[in-house]
Amino acid sequence: MRLATLPNGSHDGRLHVVSRDNARSIPAEVVTTMQALLEDWDTHAPALEAQYRTLTEGDGEAFDPATALAPMPRAWQWLDGSAYESHGMLMAKVLGIDNHADKTRPLMYQGLSDRFLAPTADVPLPTEGDGIDFEGEFGVICDAVPMGTDTATARGHIRLLVQINDWSLRAVAPIEMRTGFGWIQAKPACSMAPVAVTPDELGDAWRDARVDLPLIVDWNGERFGAAGGYAMGFGFDQLIAHAARTRNLVAGTVIGSGTVSNENYREVGSSCIAEKRGIEMLDEGEARTGFMCFGDTVRMECRTADGSPLFGAIDQRVVGL
Amino acid sequence: MRLATLPNGSHDGRLHVVSRDNARSIPAEVVTTMQALLEDWDTHAPALEAQYRTLTEGDGEAFDPATALAPMPRAWQWLDGSAYESHGMLMAKVLGIDNHADKTRPLMYQGLSDRFLAPTADVPLPTEGDGIDFEGEFGVICDAVPMGTDTATARGHIRLLVQINDWSLRAVAPIEMRTGFGWIQAKPACSMAPVAVTPDELGDAWRDARVDLPLIVDWNGERFGAAGGYAMGFGFDQLIAHAARTRNLVAGTVIGSGTVSNENYREVGSSCIAEKRGIEMLDEGEARTGFMCFGDTVRMECRTADGSPLFGAIDQRVVGL
Repeated sequence: MRLATLPNGSHDGRLHVVSRDNARSIPAEVVTTMQALLEDWDTHAPALEAQYRTLTEGDGEAFDPATALAPMPRAWQWLDGSAYESHGMLMAKVLGIDNHADKTRPLMYQGLSDRFLAPTADVPLPTEGDGIDFEGEFGVICDAVPMGTDTATARGHIRLLVQINDWSLRAVAPIEMRTGFGWIQAKPACSMAPVAVTPDELGDAWRDARVDLPLIVDWNGERFGAAGGYAMGFGFDQLIAHAARTRNLVAGTVIGSGTVSNENYREVGSSCIAEKRGIEMLDEGEARTGFMCFGDTVRMECRTADGSPLFGAIDQRVVGL
Repeated sequence: MRLATLPNGSHDGRLHVVSRDNARSIPAEVVTTMQALLEDWDTHAPALEAQYRTLTEGDGEAFDPATALAPMPRAWQWLDGSAYESHGMLMAKVLGIDNHADKTRPLMYQGLSDRFLAPTADVPLPTEGDGIDFEGEFGVICDAVPMGTDTATARGHIRLLVQINDWSLRAVAPIEMRTGFGWIQAKPACSMAPVAVTPDELGDAWRDARVDLPLIVDWNGERFGAAGGYAMGFGFDQLIAHAARTRNLVAGTVIGSGTVSNENYREVGSSCIAEKRGIEMLDEGEARTGFMCFGDTVRMECRTADGSPLFGAIDQRVVGL
């Protein structure tokens, strides 16, 4: 099943069911918002699955991803992992920090969740001097996860998969990291691709609670990266269990993979600029690629193995405040 | 004006106006939840102020703080500062970390906001081995603050003051701090005292965007601390401007002061156990006071200079999950 949220003047928008080709949609019948669906998934999902089958047979209106909001326009909680080890190593290099990589314990931060920007919305930021960067990621949306849930049980709480751009301000990041308190200014609102999908939409590409598909990233129209999603050191099930050790996860919690990254980054490219700068520092002794300028665009898309659309594309421009 | 939220079976409860003596309350007339009030303060506040005047003349039902939810039972954003310098110094000692104190830049982390526990609710946590601690704080609740708002303008966005217990797990905190990503497991849900008040309720004790009153903390019925709230190195207005530099702050954002602490901590005591342990490390070479055990209680209350109730009391017991 595929879901999107279209604007209706409210904070949460109107939940829609989207066809398998992302071309058509109809308003969800039994529930009006993504949040309400996640709060009572088992009650509402069967009716939406039935609508999804009807859509696949040709029903519905044309779906234009350019008008869509984030499928989850706001969430009560957004916890972003950093599960790709090659990313962690390069970021430690570029940020001039110790990585403190602990292979027994996922890295994760609590992020701004009151707004996920629409996939084609302009992204206003105060100054280019902050080192504006994108971070292409995958994410999951959970129903309610009780405190103390183990990894095996956590996997069953993954209801939807999403694709995220975790906007990052690299000049601020190391200053905030040195305090140990994590990021405030360095992490403005993220963006989300227009379509959220149930794991079965990926078929064999949903494997070990990971998305085994490449994330295609273009910066100003040029290919920047196509790293595969499978290389997470911890699966989403492990990230959920980690987060739930000392708290109940509210229904609708979004959990991110961190920047998609592969060990052969020199071949497949990267999902953020900072990583490319890290490679340049390793290979050439200094970073040569600058961060984003106002007016720059970034496009991120993940398709299935046969080339069909999946989450739809994030396609955005960063602008001055 | 004073406000509280009583349970009605919904996530957000039912907003009530509370009398000046915290003894009586009536349902708010024009708006049903705290979130809705913060989203349109100027429209709704005058009617609530009128109800507040009526209450002060003897109207309303008996108000029992033991039945109240947190005045803001959940928030879209919770940003907690650490604005008391004497606390920062002692915590660096007890956590075995560098303080990285930067007097030009507030310390702040993004916390779990989907639930603020009720003031008298039991607090279930998985294990005493995590080093269970309380942190007594003051906080503010803002209406919508646009990105780039300066300190002077920020002060006008402070609509309500609250009192918070920021539950902390000290055995986990330094592990998470070393990553630079901030806290996940070390910061479970916070609690909030039953009554939120407008700044004018404090009279002269609302000074320089700080609460100039002591926070009385009792652990298992014994006095633990009575530190004054004024000693913040940054006022709440500065904390808001810091948070809003690269993001819009959603209406209903809660901003915390961090653990209330004074330089004469040996005389006034502390608002968390970790600080007392830091003092013991300084004075006696090692920490002697243990953290909380299941069954332990903590009570936190702040009264006005004439001894009248203000936020009401947080009075809680920590229990095994």
